[in-house]
Amino acid sequence: MTSTLDRDVVSDLDLARADFRDQLVGAGLLVPSSLDGLYGRSGEFEDIIDLIDSRVKAAGAAAHGDALRRFRFPPVFPRDAFEKTDYIASFPNLTGAITTFSGDNKAHAELLAARSEGKDWDHWLESAGTMLVSAACHPSYSMLTGQLPDGGTMLDVYGYCFRHEPAVDPARMQAFRMHEFVQVGTPDQAVEHRESWIERGMTVLSDLGLDASPVIANDPFFGRAGRMLAANQRNENLKTELVVRLYGDLDEGTAVVSCNCHRDHFGQTFDIRTADGNEAHSACVGFGMERIALAMVRTHGLDTSQWPASLRLS
Amino acid sequence: MTSTLDRDVVSDLDLARADFRDQLVGAGLLVPSSLDGLYGRSGEFEDIIDLIDSRVKAAGAAAHGDALRRFRFPPVFPRDAFEKTDYIASFPNLTGAITTFSGDNKAHAELLAARSEGKDWDHWLESAGTMLVSAACHPSYSMLTGQLPDGGTMLDVYGYCFRHEPAVDPARMQAFRMHEFVQVGTPDQAVEHRESWIERGMTVLSDLGLDASPVIANDPFFGRAGRMLAANQRNENLKTELVVRLYGDLDEGTAVVSCNCHRDHFGQTFDIRTADGNEAHSACVGFGMERIALAMVRTHGLDTSQWPASLRLS
Repeated sequence: MTSTLDRDVVSDLDLARADFRDQLVGAGLLVPSSLDGLYGRSGEFEDIIDLIDSRVKAAGAAAHGDALRRFRFPPVFPRDAFEKTDYIASFPNLTGAITTFSGDNKAHAELLAARSEGKDWDHWLESAGTMLVSAACHPSYSMLTGQLPDGGTMLDVYGYCFRHEPAVDPARMQAFRMHEFVQVGTPDQAVEHRESWIERGMTVLSDLGLDASPVIANDPFFGRAGRMLAANQRNENLKTELVVRLYGDLDEGTAVVSCNCHRDHFGQTFDIRTADGNEAHSACVGFGMERIALAMVRTHGLDTSQWPASLRLS
Repeated sequence: MTSTLDRDVVSDLDLARADFRDQLVGAGLLVPSSLDGLYGRSGEFEDIIDLIDSRVKAAGAAAHGDALRRFRFPPVFPRDAFEKTDYIASFPNLTGAITTFSGDNKAHAELLAARSEGKDWDHWLESAGTMLVSAACHPSYSMLTGQLPDGGTMLDVYGYCFRHEPAVDPARMQAFRMHEFVQVGTPDQAVEHRESWIERGMTVLSDLGLDASPVIANDPFFGRAGRMLAANQRNENLKTELVVRLYGDLDEGTAVVSCNCHRDHFGQTFDIRTADGNEAHSACVGFGMERIALAMVRTHGLDTSQWPASLRLS
């Protein structure tokens, strides 16, 4: 139950979010669909994404040089790898599982008959053995199973992620891109990666003209058991987010970058070991590309031709 | 039942496909997963994709100039738009529907209990209202509902597509990218678009050093009713594919580009009308980016540093 005061606060925030979405659609940057959180992107919006990505890539190259191994994964990946992320335990409500039709002619005729009567036809579908990618790095760990080279490994991954959380806020999309640099190696390497990218991430954002602040993350782990996981994440200071205020004082800001230490979680579940035989630790920095683009629009205005000279789109 | 001869032919082809996949993985171009048809792409593979895309973009600009409206859609889109494509009637077995968890704490505990016993947990999921994109142009039609401007419209769309058809052949991926130019307008415009892109597509492929041929498409429409749809597609000469032989004489070649006239199908189901009030017709050309990349590897070799000078990767 929310108090009257809370309801008013929520309402102002909702209005601000809906207004921003209308502005983005009106300016032709996003194309709405029939569902909240799913948008087409205009060419101009993609040019903003490309500008941001050029800065992210440059920061990655400056920090890691030739050590960066670049991989790109499709937006779906095998369920057995998804299982090892434990995402279904922590964020079941955000998960996307793929189903498909594997029946015969008769079952297909039944499906089409139900459909033509306006009924649901999910009943005729079954698991396709695949899941939507929830975080860009998730599909990368299964290729590391086994022993890492001396010095561990450093990945550059970039791709579409899916989270089922329909919302009016244009910054909360169901499908969005994340560019990540992932360190897998010793515990010290993982902690150092997380720490050093807080500052580097702040520099990337500041060079894009954004006023960001680092805050300790408070992930929306699901349910009662999730409260313990969230407290653990805070207490051990595992995840820092860089937030930008898109809606002034109406909320605590929007996380546009996250710096996350996984400790030995993926090392354990994917059976990844360091050169000296210990369980690998990992950490990643993830740049939320659409959210950074929206923060830039909020900061520099809807008319990209009027943006500062250093941020001209190609 | 296949004859002994057929079995031998299938077997040689299967061996050739498996061998090509092993070569691609061995050269570090593709990263295998636990499922057939799902691969990570190395940075070098992505450089091939970017090279191809620069040629596709140039051909689009040369043909259509400023008339091209660029949009990018995420890999998932609303089910109501998917319904209007009628894909579930023609290719149910290739379809990907998204499910998610919408239950409470108790249901989540049950799901996790089943999971820890090694049982399936799909039973606790339900439709998320979204579908995987099957063809890059599918999410674009709902934004055209209503009346088109004079002269119709010409879209440039590029994105990930999903088709559930696990296969050893690396050219048959479950997730792959398609770059399309889509004409929506009068019947004459649609026919002209399909026709003119056969030649333009051949030029793009030839400039990439590929030996391609146009053939009338024979889509694998599902089931008994599908036979009629396939015959209709052939008889009306609606779809032409540009094929390259990846496996010599072992098969009829692999379609790497398709030129497809939809007649009034999408105009009708998405309620799109021309400026003079008639039902819009549409046609698209789709470049299968991964397949073109594989055809280039097959043609020019696994070592991209030895490719012809005009095809140097950046």
